[in-house]
Amino acid sequence: MTRDVDLLITGGTVVTMDEERRLLPSGWVAISGNRIVAVGSGDAPDSVWRPKRRIDATGMVVMPGLVSCHGHACNSLVRGMAEDRPLHEWLTEVLWPAMSHAGPDEVYRGALLSAVEMLRSGVTCFADMWTEVPSTARAVEQVGLRALLAYNLRDFGDPEKTTVELGRAVRAWRECDGTGDGRVRVGLGPHSIYACTAGMLGRARELATEHGLLLQIHVSETRREFEQSVEQHGVSPIAYLERMGFLGPDVIAAHVVWLGDGDLETLKQREVSVAHCVASNLKLGSGIASVRDYRNAGVAVGVGTDGPASNNSLDILADLKIAALLHKGVGRVPKEMPAADVVAMATADGASVLGLGDELGRLAPGRLADLILVDATGAHFTPFHPHDPNQVYAHLVYSAKSTDVRTVVVDGRIRMLDGAFVGLDEKAIIEGAQRASSRILVAAGLLPASGH
Amino acid sequence: MTRDVDLLITGGTVVTMDEERRLLPSGWVAISGNRIVAVGSGDAPDSVWRPKRRIDATGMVVMPGLVSCHGHACNSLVRGMAEDRPLHEWLTEVLWPAMSHAGPDEVYRGALLSAVEMLRSGVTCFADMWTEVPSTARAVEQVGLRALLAYNLRDFGDPEKTTVELGRAVRAWRECDGTGDGRVRVGLGPHSIYACTAGMLGRARELATEHGLLLQIHVSETRREFEQSVEQHGVSPIAYLERMGFLGPDVIAAHVVWLGDGDLETLKQREVSVAHCVASNLKLGSGIASVRDYRNAGVAVGVGTDGPASNNSLDILADLKIAALLHKGVGRVPKEMPAADVVAMATADGASVLGLGDELGRLAPGRLADLILVDATGAHFTPFHPHDPNQVYAHLVYSAKSTDVRTVVVDGRIRMLDGAFVGLDEKAIIEGAQRASSRILVAAGLLPASGH
Repeated sequence: MTRDVDLLITGGTVVTMDEERRLLPSGWVAISGNRIVAVGSGDAPDSVWRPKRRIDATGMVVMPGLVSCHGHACNSLVRGMAEDRPLHEWLTEVLWPAMSHAGPDEVYRGALLSAVEMLRSGVTCFADMWTEVPSTARAVEQVGLRALLAYNLRDFGDPEKTTVELGRAVRAWRECDGTGDGRVRVGLGPHSIYACTAGMLGRARELATEHGLLLQIHVSETRREFEQSVEQHGVSPIAYLERMGFLGPDVIAAHVVWLGDGDLETLKQREVSVAHCVASNLKLGSGIASVRDYRNAGVAVGVGTDGPASNNSLDILADLKIAALLHKGVGRVPKEMPAADVVAMATADGASVLGLGDELGRLAPGRLADLILVDATGAHFTPFHPHDPNQVYAHLVYSAKSTDVRTVVVDGRIRMLDGAFVGLDEKAIIEGAQRASSRILVAAGLLPASGH
Repeated sequence: MTRDVDLLITGGTVVTMDEERRLLPSGWVAISGNRIVAVGSGDAPDSVWRPKRRIDATGMVVMPGLVSCHGHACNSLVRGMAEDRPLHEWLTEVLWPAMSHAGPDEVYRGALLSAVEMLRSGVTCFADMWTEVPSTARAVEQVGLRALLAYNLRDFGDPEKTTVELGRAVRAWRECDGTGDGRVRVGLGPHSIYACTAGMLGRARELATEHGLLLQIHVSETRREFEQSVEQHGVSPIAYLERMGFLGPDVIAAHVVWLGDGDLETLKQREVSVAHCVASNLKLGSGIASVRDYRNAGVAVGVGTDGPASNNSLDILADLKIAALLHKGVGRVPKEMPAADVVAMATADGASVLGLGDELGRLAPGRLADLILVDATGAHFTPFHPHDPNQVYAHLVYSAKSTDVRTVVVDGRIRMLDGAFVGLDEKAIIEGAQRASSRILVAAGLLPASGH
């Protein structure tokens, strides 16, 4: 007896990232609605499943969609215009001034551009932090991704701003949470301990607890932030947040580069998740997070591309390679950071970081159907010996290119098929973003008005 | 009056990498035979040049072909099969045993695979080190690249081997030097101070001086090598080589991670060039070369992908990003390693490292016509503001993907046009390499005989 399913993907090497890390050299995935119904291997599917639609994944790796745990999608408008600067200077002299000229339309166009780039790169779910949540939500909905959008709270010591911004955050949540057929979740994003008063951080914590929202915050990104915290609060940023009762399992701490004594224990005890932004931390000279230690301590660590103005791309496969290389290289520990663990950071672990550990990040029955097909037939992917799981993981981390991602399914819907978007005009999106970028850069004096 | 040329490339953003680092937002390049005749900007070309063939580079960056200064092309056969090991273990337990089963045909097929990967990635010239020089030369000739192939000398303390291997090296030089219409040069590649006796190193030096050959050698790659040298020779690897009179402007030192007192001064004084293999050094846990110091001291530094078994790719654009990020990040010096300098490492500086500083690496009249067209219209390349040179260089280092390389010209001949190879059957090459890989891995016991 056969059972009807909406989509059957057959003939690929299925990297499940499930609890047993099963890898099926000739596997299949059956999907109904937005959920995975079954995953298996061999010739069974045709006698069991009668699919409405079928994708032949011969020569492909089928794996969970990639999860990026921290970023600022609309910052694509400033990509490549804020180079060779440390974080504080980058933020206050280029990024914030430039983006202050971006209204809802520009933010939408920047976010749309990034959503397209992420879709092409196999990112099916991302965490974002910016103020114009409705603009970003619209882009996410249109491109078909899944996202956690945290309203970016900053008051810079001004209590009037505290109230106004918190009010906006709540409105953004009410307006956008659950949109895109539930793919958009809204959270709170108090920027950092240096851009938010204790009052704002405290209120954000209360609101998060009251409404069950996730909190996304930049934590201990630079040595400057760490030292300022010690100077102003007498303790490290993490100890300061712990002291005010901010930390908990609903907190996604981005960066976490600088730790004081006891901070790692605090992160573990409070079940705080970490978004490791390897490229951005290196580029801005912020430092190198000891993610091997975090992982060994049992802290959930995902990978975040960070915004396209400090990376400068949203190619999370490239970031996985950088992370693996960096952490092997810096400690001169080539045996550590095995490729399978690195893939986990952008799939199962990343899903956990975003509070979706039971829903996403693994190809297993009952999970949301977010998955990608990665072409394994290119010269750079050769030789391919799928019966050796280690080689498959190594290829995904070290050899795969984001352009190998050929097909993307999010929430059971095919959003890209063999490199072609379904229902999206990529060229128009690129042109719209280009114009929006010119507008804000000219307004900010970063580009001359002529010649564009 | 118009002048006949063979090829005219118009309408692109020309990144010349010439002495003035001119960047021409609407530029053109005229080519006759295998040389660049002129580079300019604006609408002039049609009134001046009458081309046999024309390439429209609208939406493209036109730049010098990329130069990879160290690698082992045929090692692609072992890609992804030698993971999570430090150099010595990787070399003696996997790489050498596996490659010992590779005869001339397997080496040819592995090198051909790598040549195809390099061509697709915009690498037009590479330095290689392996024993089967004729096999690699054949692959280079077929794919149309330019290469320096160093015969890999090793005697492991056995004087009989010294003579045999040096004889083979000289034969390889006589047989292959100047093949491929002069694109193939052959040099000597004494492996390292730990795989070569002082006698072999001395003879290699003599032969190089006598015949004007380049010397390629792994130098001070690991701390183990450094410490062994101090133990056995009383000095660092570089001081040991200096003491025996080995060093000179014809030496390409690969890796150079560990320096003793005075070593940097020695490198500078002897005008030794360095091939920085950032990905490989990190992956094998060898350490981090202080290339900022080398560059500041005036030592020529290029980038090498190293072999595909320790990277695991030949994507030099990816390596440029890793190098820029690493050296900004490790020293927390975001202002250093500006993108233009990083691009130079893979173009003009790389050419200098390979002794072709007057011939390659810049788009300028009289230079060899090795150049690539990089698509600047993708979402990840947006916004693109070509009137801002900094942004163009930043995009090339941080945002460009190897798959953006659409067209490749080597020695004046179009080898890839808008992603399509000219006269190469890529699929057959990939399949041939896959079979060759299976053969040697099965023979080495690294893959089961069944299932392939």
